[in-house]
Amino acid sequence: MRTSIATVSLSGSLTEKLTAAARAGFDGVEIFENDLLASPLTPEEIRARCADLGLTIDLYQPMRDIEAVPEDEFARNLRRARHKFELMRRLGTGTVLVCSSVSPLALDDDALAAAQLSQLADLAQGFGVRVAYEALAWGRHVSTYDHAWSIVESAGHPALGTCLDSFHILSRGSDPKGIEDIPGEKIFFLQLADAPLLAMDVLQWSRHYRCFPGQGGFDVAGLLRHVVRAGYDGPLSLEVFNDVFRQAEAGPTAVDARRSLLVLQESVGLARLPDPVVPAGIAFAELVTPDAEPVAAVLRALGLSRTARHRSKPVDLWERGEARILVNTGPTARRDGTSLAAIGLESPNPTAAARRAESLLAPVLPRRRAPQDVPLEAVAAPDGTELFFCTTNHPQLPNWQTDFEPVEAAGPTEPVAPVAPVEATGSAGSAGTGEAAGGVTCIDHLALTQPWHQFDEAALFHRSVLGLYAQESVDVADPYGLFRSRAVTNSRGSVRIALAVGPGPTDDGTRAQHIALATGDIVAAARRFREVGGRLLPIPANYYDDLAARFELDEGELATYRELGILYDRDAQGEFRHCYTRTVGRVFFELVQRDGGYQGYGAQNAPVRLAAQHAQRPLR
Amino acid sequence: MRTSIATVSLSGSLTEKLTAAARAGFDGVEIFENDLLASPLTPEEIRARCADLGLTIDLYQPMRDIEAVPEDEFARNLRRARHKFELMRRLGTGTVLVCSSVSPLALDDDALAAAQLSQLADLAQGFGVRVAYEALAWGRHVSTYDHAWSIVESAGHPALGTCLDSFHILSRGSDPKGIEDIPGEKIFFLQLADAPLLAMDVLQWSRHYRCFPGQGGFDVAGLLRHVVRAGYDGPLSLEVFNDVFRQAEAGPTAVDARRSLLVLQESVGLARLPDPVVPAGIAFAELVTPDAEPVAAVLRALGLSRTARHRSKPVDLWERGEARILVNTGPTARRDGTSLAAIGLESPNPTAAARRAESLLAPVLPRRRAPQDVPLEAVAAPDGTELFFCTTNHPQLPNWQTDFEPVEAAGPTEPVAPVAPVEATGSAGSAGTGEAAGGVTCIDHLALTQPWHQFDEAALFHRSVLGLYAQESVDVADPYGLFRSRAVTNSRGSVRIALAVGPGPTDDGTRAQHIALATGDIVAAARRFREVGGRLLPIPANYYDDLAARFELDEGELATYRELGILYDRDAQGEFRHCYTRTVGRVFFELVQRDGGYQGYGAQNAPVRLAAQHAQRPLR
Repeated sequence: MRTSIATVSLSGSLTEKLTAAARAGFDGVEIFENDLLASPLTPEEIRARCADLGLTIDLYQPMRDIEAVPEDEFARNLRRARHKFELMRRLGTGTVLVCSSVSPLALDDDALAAAQLSQLADLAQGFGVRVAYEALAWGRHVSTYDHAWSIVESAGHPALGTCLDSFHILSRGSDPKGIEDIPGEKIFFLQLADAPLLAMDVLQWSRHYRCFPGQGGFDVAGLLRHVVRAGYDGPLSLEVFNDVFRQAEAGPTAVDARRSLLVLQESVGLARLPDPVVPAGIAFAELVTPDAEPVAAVLRALGLSRTARHRSKPVDLWERGEARILVNTGPTARRDGTSLAAIGLESPNPTAAARRAESLLAPVLPRRRAPQDVPLEAVAAPDGTELFFCTTNHPQLPNWQTDFEPVEAAGPTEPVAPVAPVEATGSAGSAGTGEAAGGVTCIDHLALTQPWHQFDEAALFHRSVLGLYAQESVDVADPYGLFRSRAVTNSRGSVRIALAVGPGPTDDGTRAQHIALATGDIVAAARRFREVGGRLLPIPANYYDDLAARFELDEGELATYRELGILYDRDAQGEFRHCYTRTVGRVFFELVQRDGGYQGYGAQNAPVRLAAQHAQRPLR
Repeated sequence: MRTSIATVSLSGSLTEKLTAAARAGFDGVEIFENDLLASPLTPEEIRARCADLGLTIDLYQPMRDIEAVPEDEFARNLRRARHKFELMRRLGTGTVLVCSSVSPLALDDDALAAAQLSQLADLAQGFGVRVAYEALAWGRHVSTYDHAWSIVESAGHPALGTCLDSFHILSRGSDPKGIEDIPGEKIFFLQLADAPLLAMDVLQWSRHYRCFPGQGGFDVAGLLRHVVRAGYDGPLSLEVFNDVFRQAEAGPTAVDARRSLLVLQESVGLARLPDPVVPAGIAFAELVTPDAEPVAAVLRALGLSRTARHRSKPVDLWERGEARILVNTGPTARRDGTSLAAIGLESPNPTAAARRAESLLAPVLPRRRAPQDVPLEAVAAPDGTELFFCTTNHPQLPNWQTDFEPVEAAGPTEPVAPVAPVEATGSAGSAGTGEAAGGVTCIDHLALTQPWHQFDEAALFHRSVLGLYAQESVDVADPYGLFRSRAVTNSRGSVRIALAVGPGPTDDGTRAQHIALATGDIVAAARRFREVGGRLLPIPANYYDDLAARFELDEGELATYRELGILYDRDAQGEFRHCYTRTVGRVFFELVQRDGGYQGYGAQNAPVRLAAQHAQRPLR
């Protein structure tokens, strides 16, 4: 089916919007009246611009407060409509959206509504225009889709049909099954939007909080199935009013929009995409830095060793157990210091994973490699993080580690695991291969702060492109504003990525990122880290007094946590202990010990940790 | 009565919050548990810090999920409480807030709740602590203040009382009159917060959208009267959870908070402040600029003349009718170009106006003047705009214009009105003293973009300090994000200031400002402006096609508007015509013609105007 997007869903001037929609691959647009009014282009020029861009104009919208009004008022409305139909002829578009009236003049009289809509359709027909009548969720007398359809049906005019909008239908809690009773050819248009499930005034909800399908809480796919069964074959069009998208750049928003439609189409069998290939683990995390030494010092204190160096690039491999960290001092390193630039995702089928990503509009990255290097498939996540689909120690597939040459192990404190190739096939999590107590075993999770405008996009990206599961988002109180955090994981928990977003658009994603390393014995790990000169984030004593109030912890245990700055959490499944290193550039490390099925990230402790990190910053 | 503020209402570390509260003049604070947990100071150090700052610690908060639970659970709760009471002893605070339980374990059993709260109060008493039990609006079984009070009453424990919170009471729609039935000495604490009237989930509403009294839609004053009548004599304490305040600087937020309490106290007769002195008109608007010439060119084309120059400062007076604009090239001019830095408010009693402002914590500005100058009282508005309280041509009061010396009139196109002193005593608005058609008569309104964090503060400031009336705020769609705009006016409409705020914290108030000049004949004014070389903002032709659809305007009239770029609006009261100059620095001018009793600002046209202004910017 053809795809379309309402210009009101994108930011900028009309021509910016059209360009972004075309680039993202939409087939058409709905033109929102205010966008046309504010454009210096004539309707004919807009028509030509759309044609150049390969876009059809699928809808002109909206006309308001037309029907079920006294005769003199209706005469004025017809006069206004004639102007708009004339405009539509110049624009070359054949369908107009008429919203159910919210006017105080409107009468609760379906027969009058039908008669006047019929007259309107008569007039429209003369201009080659069809009228699509839609129930606004807050319409004065007509607020449900079945009511709007009953009026359209009784009018019985060939140029009058209905427009369905998933927001208006689902926000009212209407059962979308009844859509199947509408003849497909009388559904003149379908507008799709999702929204978070908020208990709020429906008008405000609609105007400010709509989002793209799959980013909210509505069953948009279920609704679409009913519409398809009804026989609708017009465009699938996104109409999303959203305060965030209004400020975001139109280009990325349009890509996000179209990805959401592709996922929706796939979910109802309207599009066939390559299957998702769920990553099985984190092969590596890659830091770029203009100076390897500060990072190296922390990694060394964490018990990792530099085991290998890339054959052709200034990239070191540090590892311990299955935790692998690349330190890249190449030209991509920026002056703003150390940052987490790439993630290697352990993939059962890297090529298929990349094809999936590409089909969902993820930018495919050029293979930055020398001719002899193992080919690595890579795409960019919405925040710019590079995602490599790769394999470690897989007999049938190329191993990214073969690009690395072993170096002399130089761990100052103890011997380390042998360098690649390693025999073990990767069991995420605890203990395992005879690690010394407190040894790091793997990467527990990665935390990435997202650009403010792209938080919802990021969650949908990780779900749809990578096949990860998105947990509920949680609010976290930083001393200087509320954060939101949402984790995406695979079913085993061997891939966990926490996506965070700051309190406002100034938070452009340049905040801290972190790498959490798992250990089976955090006390031993923290102690050793300190013994070799590492500095752990100091946690206030008041936190431990509160811990004593909340949990009946052993006195000695509590004293140890207090001494080392270890935070503690417990839920119905298990326990979680964690502590933090100081920050290098944008990056810090966390040591975590999960016991007994605990699935969270210690969100309860985040305000204290954030305040402690602020306290470490240079004083004003 | 003493005033207090909850630390959760302010941004930053605990010590930042305490410092801001003390500087704003609060007597005490409520300490929010998470702020204490995150502080590196011990409870004793916090106590000492508060004492140094002259702050009492009026409340420790909150304890949650205490009452009406099975015995084993309650035993754990008492254990937890003992830790907290011990902490409170170290902190030196005597009252703890206990919120009604939201726990799934809580039973709907008032007798059990009373018995357990009584046990808790017994324990508290041993530590010199009183328990203030409060109904959360979303409490599991106890969600109204009268219910909480009935439990407290039946417990009958001397160390158990109730805490009243205006948000929890008013958000539920409870009648606050029943408060008078509670003995004053059993009201252990009073928390005050306002909120905009939103139909949304009450928990989300409370956590994110509370605001200071007078900034929302609740009748907080009415509630306070009932509490005072009940005999309460504890502190008036602000507890405001707000996403904006969390990001704003603590210092200004604390001042805003305390101003709101002062206004509230005044409104119920608990504080006596100097009466407001409502300004009668705009005496002048002052632009600062590093280069007077571009501004002068626009003013000249608008028909204003340079009539006088300040005796001791590089300030020119431009005027026409009662529109007076100062152009200041002095050292306050910044490199970011021309901006609107000060407003002269025509005041019936400048000294009294300044005393009012000072009593409401408006920063009093030093009198930047030479010994011979007329003393001008001035304060700073929240956005930094200087407000001068002054008089023009008032026989008994010093006239600011006497600091200016007339210069040779040099209007190139026509003779201008004589320079000050003028005899007329100032009738705002139309025609008057034999103006040529299209002459500017006065300043119709000023529009100032506010820093994002201070929009609500600005409205309260203008209402309370200046005695202006605040209209409803309206959303305006800029192509790159939603604006909100709210006008403050005097009753005659001779002072109108439109406060606008951009879509996010990046909008720090450096966006455009404008000066709207009234004329009785906008067509003549616009035509003459163009004839002498002025450039009006071009408005797209599509706008006029829409105007033709919406209004039955005369064809010739419409053609004139189209030619000149004049925008049109109409409401039940009258008509509004307006057009815009190009922007100089941050400032542009608007010409407006109001007819009939039109009171608005053409908000309907703002999206087209904003898009047209964006289109004038340098291309990317």
